[in-house]
Amino acid sequence: MTPPRSLCYDADRVSVRIIDQTLLPAQLQWRELVEVEDFFEAIAAMRVRGAPLIGICAAYGLALGLLRDPSLHNLQQCQARLSSARPTAVNLDWALRRLAGRVATLPQAERGEQALLEAHALAEEDVNNCRRIGEHGLPLLQELARAKPGARVQVLTHCNAGSLATLQWGTALAPLYLAHEAGLAIHVWVSETRPRNQGALTVWELTQAGIPHTLVTDSAAGHLMQSGEVDCCIVGSDRTAINGDVCNKIGTYPKALVARDRGIPRYVALPVSPHNWDCARGDSSTG
Amino acid sequence: MTPPRSLCYDADRVSVRIIDQTLLPAQLQWRELVEVEDFFEAIAAMRVRGAPLIGICAAYGLALGLLRDPSLHNLQQCQARLSSARPTAVNLDWALRRLAGRVATLPQAERGEQALLEAHALAEEDVNNCRRIGEHGLPLLQELARAKPGARVQVLTHCNAGSLATLQWGTALAPLYLAHEAGLAIHVWVSETRPRNQGALTVWELTQAGIPHTLVTDSAAGHLMQSGEVDCCIVGSDRTAINGDVCNKIGTYPKALVARDRGIPRYVALPVSPHNWDCARGDSSTG
Repeated sequence: MTPPRSLCYDADRVSVRIIDQTLLPAQLQWRELVEVEDFFEAIAAMRVRGAPLIGICAAYGLALGLLRDPSLHNLQQCQARLSSARPTAVNLDWALRRLAGRVATLPQAERGEQALLEAHALAEEDVNNCRRIGEHGLPLLQELARAKPGARVQVLTHCNAGSLATLQWGTALAPLYLAHEAGLAIHVWVSETRPRNQGALTVWELTQAGIPHTLVTDSAAGHLMQSGEVDCCIVGSDRTAINGDVCNKIGTYPKALVARDRGIPRYVALPVSPHNWDCARGDSSTG
Repeated sequence: MTPPRSLCYDADRVSVRIIDQTLLPAQLQWRELVEVEDFFEAIAAMRVRGAPLIGICAAYGLALGLLRDPSLHNLQQCQARLSSARPTAVNLDWALRRLAGRVATLPQAERGEQALLEAHALAEEDVNNCRRIGEHGLPLLQELARAKPGARVQVLTHCNAGSLATLQWGTALAPLYLAHEAGLAIHVWVSETRPRNQGALTVWELTQAGIPHTLVTDSAAGHLMQSGEVDCCIVGSDRTAINGDVCNKIGTYPKALVARDRGIPRYVALPVSPHNWDCARGDSSTG
């Protein structure tokens, strides 16, 4: 199945609807964002989260702000306000800069409408990029399945990189959605991801998609890999250095070391976007 | 300071008092154990836990059972019942076998009293062994302190291996108690140890001893070691193979890999006891 979108633009109401992720997995509740301050609050309170989704959400916030007041003064104010909502989210600042850069030199009357088109473009790019990640990842899973006929492919992931973290397909989960759709027998080990428990969001996504999975403690990954219960690891990336090093949620690094120690293939699923190449330190993967 | 004992024999009441560890850290409550069934329940419900303490507790349970009925039939029944309280605790079965082996061939009238003496001996051995672990570990910490004058020595531990896990000094925490007593500036990173959160017990022990510490998520250890915030790792051992491999709480293995990757010294603090040498598989460390 095609996973549902976690953010929708409503043209009639000129507003954006998001799933309030702070209420998941207990409750699925949509929330309408209208004012720039609504968008700021939604990002700051982690009602929307996941690097790609934050960028898209902020872009819509800026566009809606410009539809109301397209002055350069307002552009700067909205951009600064939204950018400060979550200082560590690199996609946030990147998306806002991209939008601002494309509309700042336009005649004032065109600015709002063009910003909205840019936000739409950003959203569609994300959907397509993530779908393509899935298409690239699928053959890797098919190969693992061929190597163990009759048995399910066991995948370990960490944190949340599914439909809730992006607009639709996710990054790490995109190959899994497609594998499940293609009838591959898979099972996913989901880390709790303390202290924010984003694993619960991944559990929710996998449940929605009907993909078999098990929630485990973060440390259990070591034991599972040691016991031959993991065929590959797939995680997302919060930030990527030009040499290919990735920064991802705390816990990615020990898991990568275990996978290396056990000879288990490990993949980072990420889109190639300009904002991924602004970090060039050689040793930047996070714990 | 000398840490308080977590289990006491009361000669007047012919009973044993334990700290009910299921109520910690919220509440310090002692519980009296009299019948063999009290001991069984305390071990099965994890009111007492920690490999060494379980063994000692069970030994007292068997001794008290024999004081009441010293028949061989009762010896076998009590031993079997207590041994089944926590099947994975190797110290449990070892302590019971030791006691049973020493009293089974005695005249029936001497059995109860002798079993009680054996339980006392086991308890004193544990106290002395753990104190000696501390004395062996202290110079390692002093050396680390000399290498960074003016700064505190940062130690990472995992799970619970302090006064609550043994009778008094703990294993992993024994060197830390002595270092603190000796005036060394130390700070301890304590892993949550999901899913049972034994880190909360370690926090309680360190708080009691006045040793500075911080509770962190299990995965954070990777980031802390990567950031130079850890000078050494010390953990206990649930079981030790003859080649020196240790089995310890889930999460020990990924942490050990990170420490190796970062060149950080890692120590396992354990007593040399016969029950540590019954496992000879080469690759037995747990995740």
